[in-house]
Amino acid sequence: MASGPLTGFRIVDLSRVLSGPIATTLLADQGADVIKVEPLNGDLIRAMGGSGLSGTFVSANRGKRSIALDLHTEHGIDVVKKLVANADVFIQNFRPGAASGMGLGYEVLREINPRLVYVSVSGFGEEGPYAHKRVYDPVIQALSGMADIQASSENDRPRLMRTVIPDKTTGLTVAQAITAALLSRERTGEGQAVDVAMLDALVSFLWPEGLVGLTFVGNEANVKRGQRTRDLIYQTKDGYITAGALSNREWEGMCRALDKPEWLTDERFSTPRARGMNGALRLELTAEVLATNTSAYWLERLDAEEVPCAPVLSRPEVIEHEQIKVNGTVTEYDHPHLGRIRQPRPAAKFAATPPATEQVAPLLGEHTRAVLTEAGYDEATIETLITDGVAIASE
Amino acid sequence: MASGPLTGFRIVDLSRVLSGPIATTLLADQGADVIKVEPLNGDLIRAMGGSGLSGTFVSANRGKRSIALDLHTEHGIDVVKKLVANADVFIQNFRPGAASGMGLGYEVLREINPRLVYVSVSGFGEEGPYAHKRVYDPVIQALSGMADIQASSENDRPRLMRTVIPDKTTGLTVAQAITAALLSRERTGEGQAVDVAMLDALVSFLWPEGLVGLTFVGNEANVKRGQRTRDLIYQTKDGYITAGALSNREWEGMCRALDKPEWLTDERFSTPRARGMNGALRLELTAEVLATNTSAYWLERLDAEEVPCAPVLSRPEVIEHEQIKVNGTVTEYDHPHLGRIRQPRPAAKFAATPPATEQVAPLLGEHTRAVLTEAGYDEATIETLITDGVAIASE
Repeated sequence: MASGPLTGFRIVDLSRVLSGPIATTLLADQGADVIKVEPLNGDLIRAMGGSGLSGTFVSANRGKRSIALDLHTEHGIDVVKKLVANADVFIQNFRPGAASGMGLGYEVLREINPRLVYVSVSGFGEEGPYAHKRVYDPVIQALSGMADIQASSENDRPRLMRTVIPDKTTGLTVAQAITAALLSRERTGEGQAVDVAMLDALVSFLWPEGLVGLTFVGNEANVKRGQRTRDLIYQTKDGYITAGALSNREWEGMCRALDKPEWLTDERFSTPRARGMNGALRLELTAEVLATNTSAYWLERLDAEEVPCAPVLSRPEVIEHEQIKVNGTVTEYDHPHLGRIRQPRPAAKFAATPPATEQVAPLLGEHTRAVLTEAGYDEATIETLITDGVAIASE
Repeated sequence: MASGPLTGFRIVDLSRVLSGPIATTLLADQGADVIKVEPLNGDLIRAMGGSGLSGTFVSANRGKRSIALDLHTEHGIDVVKKLVANADVFIQNFRPGAASGMGLGYEVLREINPRLVYVSVSGFGEEGPYAHKRVYDPVIQALSGMADIQASSENDRPRLMRTVIPDKTTGLTVAQAITAALLSRERTGEGQAVDVAMLDALVSFLWPEGLVGLTFVGNEANVKRGQRTRDLIYQTKDGYITAGALSNREWEGMCRALDKPEWLTDERFSTPRARGMNGALRLELTAEVLATNTSAYWLERLDAEEVPCAPVLSRPEVIEHEQIKVNGTVTEYDHPHLGRIRQPRPAAKFAATPPATEQVAPLLGEHTRAVLTEAGYDEATIETLITDGVAIASE
C-alpha cells in the first residue's frame, strides 16, 4: 500500500518518547516499514493516555508496527539482532553507552549487517560533563540559549517556549540524517554510524538569527537589544492580530491602512533604518491605532494594502481556518482503537510518491507475532518466547 | 574536497531569505554542490550586513556558489535552464505561480531534465485564500496556533516566539524532503515535484504535543489549561536555572536536594497525578526555596540527586559552555572576506561521510564565470552576458 519515497526501507526503532519517534514517524509516513521495539511496559508516553494510545503517542508513532520485548534477557536481545539482519536502519536514544551495554552497540550490529545505518540520538553528546545526565526538553532550552532568546522584554526573565522545540527539531534533523545516510549508501554500498545530540541540533537550529550575534569573533553584537521592544502581536477591539511592514512599500501601505497619512512624512519612520531606530515608538503608536477597531476591520484594510497580516488563531480555530481546509493540512479519519481522530498530513507533498495518510498507531505488541514470523521464527519458538515472558503479543 | 552524504548531487537554488536557503545550506554542508542563483541586487538578506555578507546570510548560505542573473531577461532564464539540464534538484520559494510565469515551471524544466527533483516552498500553499499573500514568520506563528501556545499565563495575551521557528522548521522539512526524493529517484529513476507550505510544516511540527488536544474528534481537550501555571525557569540568588521532576524517583530526589523532607509525605505531591493536580502550588513552593541560594549551590545538589537541571545560559555563555566545547558544536575559523567567524557545526555526525565544516558564503556573483563555464558557455558568450547586464561577476 505504501507509496512514499521511503518505501522498501526497514527501520528497527528502539527510540522512545519524542526525539527519535518523531523522526521515524516522518519516515513511516513516507513509506518506511518501522518496527517499534518496546519494553514490556511500553514506551513511556503510551501512559499519557488511558488506552496506551495517548494523543502524543499516536502522533509520534503512527504508521509503525510494535513488538514488545524484554531487552534485559539474552533472548530478547537475540530477537533484535535477528531483526537488524534484515533492516536498513537501527535507531536508539538511550543514554550514551547504554546500547553497547545491552549488546546492541554499532560494532556488534555492523558485524551482523555491514550495510546498516546505525543512529544514536543523545541529549548532550557521547562525551563531556553532561553526557550522562538525564535530558528533558527545558534543559536543552536552557543550555542552548533558547530560554535567553525568549526572555521577557519587561524584566529580562528567561522564559521557556511552551512547545518542545528541542525534541521536535531534533526529530526533523534525525529524519534528514537517516535519509541522507541511506542516499549515500545507494552510491557507496556502505552503512555507517550517525550521531545526533539534541544540544547540537538546537544550537545549529537557533543560529541563523537567534545566535547570529555571536558570528563575528571580537565583534559580537549586544544580543539582547532586539528584546527590548514589544512583539508584533496587537490587541484589537475583539481579539488579536499580527501585522508587519519591512519594506518602504509595506510601510506606506500600513500608514494608509491605519489612516495615518502624517506618518508618511514623519522622518522618524521614513527609511527602514529610521523605522528600526524608532521601533519601540512605532510599535506603540501602531498598537494604539489597532486597539480602536475590530480584527476584521483592520485585516481587510491591511490586506487591501498588501501588508502582511493575519488573525492570531486559537488552537481550535486553526483546524477550522479556510486555508488549513484548502490545504488539507489536517486529516480526520477513523482509528480502529480510538474512534474518529485528527492528524496533520505530512507537510511535504511528493507528486510521484505521495506519503501515506490515515496512519494508525500500534497497540503495545500488536505486531509481535507478525514481526517474529517475518524474522524467521517458527510458531513453537514464538509461543515459547511469549510463555517465557520474553515477548508480549497483544491480540 | 566534499565528503558528505550528498556529495555528487547538484542543486540549482533560486530560493531566497530563509526557508529555502536554510534547507540548501544543510545539504551543502553534507556535500551537495549548491548553485545559488541570485537577482542582480542579491538575496534580500545580504543587505542586513554592510558587506553583503550579513551574519544571517552567511549562516543560511555557507558552502554555496553564487551566480547573479537578471531573471527578467530571456537570456537570464536560458542560463537557468542550462544549469537545470545538469542538476539533480531545482528549488524556488517565489509566490505560487511566479516561477511558471518566469518560464521556470515544472512542466518546462522536466522536459529539459526528466530526473529533476523540482521543489516549491510557499508560505500558505499553492491555492486558497492566503495563497497569494505575502508571508512573514509572525504571520505563520499567528495562523498555526504557535502564538496561542506561547500565550501569557497571566493574561492570555498571545505571544510570538522570538526566533523564526516557521522559517527554520520549514528549512529542515524541505531538506529532508529533497533528500527523500533523491533517495526515491535512486530506485525509480524518476524525478518529481515536491511542494512544502510553511503553514503545513508548522502545523505538523506543532501537533505532537502543541496541538495534540485536538486529536480526538468530539473530545477535544481544553487546550489552554497547561498555560495557567508558571514555566520551569527559577530565579536563584544570582541567576536562573531550570529543574524538573517527572517520575517519583526524580521528585524524591528534588525533595532531598531542596531539603524539604516533609514534601515526601505530603499527599498533595505523592503521585505523578497528584503533582499534576497541584502543579501551580508545587512550582511556587519550589521557586520559593530555589530563590534562597545560588545557582551553583542548587545545581550541585540537584545533580547529586539525578534531577534533570541546568543553568539558563545567556547567548554569550552558550559558546563558552564546557559541553558545547567538548561537542565542538561551534566552529571558529577564518572567512576570506569576513575575518574570524563562528558557525555551528552541522548537527548530525556521519562517521563514514563527515559533513564539511569551515564553509564559506559567497559574494554576489562570485562564481558567475565558473558556473557559466561549467555549463558550457564559451568565454566570448560569458563576456557578452556580463557586458549586456544579464549576469554580474564579482572578481
